Amino acid sequence: MKKYVAEMIGTMVLVLMGCGSAVFAGTIQPFSSVGTLGVAFAFGLAVLTMVYTIGKISGCHINPAITLGMLLSKRISGKDAGMYMIFQVIGAIIGSSILFILAKDSGSATTLTGANGYHDLVPAFVAETVFTFIFLLVVLGSTSKGANTKFAGIAIGLALVLIHIVCIPITGTSVNPARSIGPALFQGGEALSQLWLFIVAPFLGAAIAAFVWKGIDTEEA
Amino acid sequence: MKKYVAEMIGTMVLVLMGCGSAVFAGTIQPFSSVGTLGVAFAFGLAVLTMVYTIGKISGCHINPAITLGMLLSKRISGKDAGMYMIFQVIGAIIGSSILFILAKDSGSATTLTGANGYHDLVPAFVAETVFTFIFLLVVLGSTSKGANTKFAGIAIGLALVLIHIVCIPITGTSVNPARSIGPALFQGGEALSQLWLFIVAPFLGAAIAAFVWKGIDTEEA
Amino acid sequence: MKKYVAEMIGTMVLVLMGCGSAVFAGTIQPFSSVGTLGVAFAFGLAVLTMVYTIGKISGCHINPAITLGMLLSKRISGKDAGMYMIFQVIGAIIGSSILFILAKDSGSATTLTGANGYHDLVPAFVAETVFTFIFLLVVLGSTSKGANTKFAGIAIGLALVLIHIVCIPITGTSVNPARSIGPALFQGGEALSQLWLFIVAPFLGAAIAAFVWKGIDTEEA
Amino acid sequence: MKKYVAEMIGTMVLVLMGCGSAVFAGTIQPFSSVGTLGVAFAFGLAVLTMVYTIGKISGCHINPAITLGMLLSKRISGKDAGMYMIFQVIGAIIGSSILFILAKDSGSATTLTGANGYHDLVPAFVAETVFTFIFLLVVLGSTSKGANTKFAGIAIGLALVLIHIVCIPITGTSVNPARSIGPALFQGGEALSQLWLFIVAPFLGAAIAAFVWKGIDTEEA
Repeated sequence: MKKYVAEMIGTMVLVLMGCGSAVFAGTIQPFSSVGTLGVAFAFGLAVLTMVYTIGKISGCHINPAITLGMLLSKRISGKDAGMYMIFQVIGAIIGSSILFILAKDSGSATTLTGANGYHDLVPAFVAETVFTFIFLLVVLGSTSKGANTKFAGIAIGLALVLIHIVCIPITGTSVNPARSIGPALFQGGEALSQLWLFIVAPFLGAAIAAFVWKGIDTEEA
Repeated sequence: MKKYVAEMIGTMVLVLMGCGSAVFAGTIQPFSSVGTLGVAFAFGLAVLTMVYTIGKISGCHINPAITLGMLLSKRISGKDAGMYMIFQVIGAIIGSSILFILAKDSGSATTLTGANGYHDLVPAFVAETVFTFIFLLVVLGSTSKGANTKFAGIAIGLALVLIHIVCIPITGTSVNPARSIGPALFQGGEALSQLWLFIVAPFLGAAIAAFVWKGIDTEEA
Repeated sequence: MKKYVAEMIGTMVLVLMGCGSAVFAGTIQPFSSVGTLGVAFAFGLAVLTMVYTIGKISGCHINPAITLGMLLSKRISGKDAGMYMIFQVIGAIIGSSILFILAKDSGSATTLTGANGYHDLVPAFVAETVFTFIFLLVVLGSTSKGANTKFAGIAIGLALVLIHIVCIPITGTSVNPARSIGPALFQGGEALSQLWLFIVAPFLGAAIAAFVWKGIDTEEA
Repeated sequence: MKKYVAEMIGTMVLVLMGCGSAVFAGTIQPFSSVGTLGVAFAFGLAVLTMVYTIGKISGCHINPAITLGMLLSKRISGKDAGMYMIFQVIGAIIGSSILFILAKDSGSATTLTGANGYHDLVPAFVAETVFTFIFLLVVLGSTSKGANTKFAGIAIGLALVLIHIVCIPITGTSVNPARSIGPALFQGGEALSQLWLFIVAPFLGAAIAAFVWKGIDTEEA
């Protein structure tokens, strides 16, 4: 049970801080906004810090796409994978709730939830699939047998910074179905009707990564 | 005694550098300001570097909320906790004094002290409580038995970067009573009358984190 | 074979993410562009994360100039070096292809490929030679016997961030022939006619670095 | 002899890359300048990467103030300290020469050398003394017996990022006499007549740090 609660808290932190950075980046400030680069660091550092905080408890997936990749790589049981995903989504909803309380009177013009969205379907689907593939490759590789695993938290967190730098202009960047579900529930409208893409594409990218990693891992028979 | 002096120096560095970055970010420069992201990095890197400098001497709390969390988690004695807090506040005041000397003729339009403040009470209180909760979770988790503790300084420092990215637009970010007391004494006025919030909310967040961490730590009985 | 495929994937990630950050940084966004600093981080973090992902498989060169430096330092065989370079170029072309799909309708005004180029031949040649020399010195030094090699991925990745910060205004920064070949094929025109510089200068810088490092390495006889 | 050459190369890299980032940050670019934060990262990452490159050869001082602090802490001989400083200054001059070649036709409006300077004597002297004191404290502490020394390169490099974030608006940030001497020779005029401050204040700060560290180090008798 402890590990499920840890996943819930970690995903809450990721959604609250990552989406929160986007919400408040639009606020007028004396010395300018954190900008897209600041939002990219927020998402990545949330993951990096959570890895070193709850990693020993649950492995710190805090992302159903990672949990799927781990399941397909036979590093987690089916029952645990299901429970992880449920608690991740609950955590994301809690994170979005707290952010809603903080943001509702802030007068932010850009976004009040940090929900994902897209203009053109095809590039959005390609982007979310390819970038989740890259993200999962880093996750699976940096935590694999024979790798320099103590640095995995740094590699995985900074990989998420990297992906956000490139992908924020395309979809806002999901690569994590839980991170998209939480804000979409509060945003409603288009965010809800486009939500399927931010579930299907990340899961697809994760499945491809599990397959490719199995092919190139030198520890595999 | 050495550890108390180390806490004093570390807190001095945190306040001087963190608040200093905010003070001078408003100065007109040839190639633009460091912006909010630069201020966020200043606070976080001050903690990160101090952990690897004085960590072996005092554990590098340099924050009364961390000391409270450590006390409630029974990792420090009551006497040491009291002395740590006193020396942290002295260090913060020294840091603010040096900054005042550097800044008083700088013509900075934004702030001369980097004091915390808020517009709306409720979101400010929620933000300081929740963000200190998250910060302490990282501190308690990354330094706990069984964790990858050599990386704790990186995790804790970057957690503070993360929290500042999100929270600077809300309160300027305290999550550390000593960091708020020093500048408020030099700023006076509203900074002093609002100071209670930046003591009560961080202590509350720290207490909740100590309680929650005890519940999810897999090393606990 | 696994190591050749790993080199191909790693170089694909570097070109897609690094050049992708430059392509989309020009897109109009609600909260401003990632700027030159964001592009610098994208290239460097792509290398940093790939080192911790495929380092155990191929050593993660993902750059023909690094492979040349390793060959001259007798750390890789001639046959492997040739295969590495071929697969790196294939990976770069795949990366540019994916980026072309994502970018072709994005309306980016700055660049659709992230190709390298220059205005003045002499400073461009000097810059690419000197900066590749510095980059290879970091690669050869941080992975050498007696060095703190577990941190090599961080040192090498952040060295690339550093080089991009300085060199983006000069040539866009190559220091990697594969990274220049991929985008130039899609860009055509001047990018193709100037391509020779981004092959010759990095190879020259790498050769000088291998020679200099041999001279100062304390592990050498 | 190898260690002297290593110090020369390391200081060359620091001056070329750090000052180079400031020189080219003023250049007109398609997607905006790296700004003050980018310059701060350039100086710090130059040190961070050099520590992991030449650290095993010379300890990577690349700064006469660090060498003085090490001499006063009895961690280097008087003869070596003198040679280190000479080779550091030579390296800085080489770095400035290369930068001069790259920059002389760039049309940069801000600075062609990255030389240090000040408007008001007293805050500049206080700033350089205090910030060198803090920098040396990090150097002496993070490399001391009982510390988490493998992370010293990260702590020292990021401490320099931090100091630049705060101090660039005051003096451009020296905390390193060699870094000031190189550019001043090419800049001439006020940069030369103010140069004494960027030698005296850093040496003073380093001496204070050596004294204070001796007082708080728990490994001292």
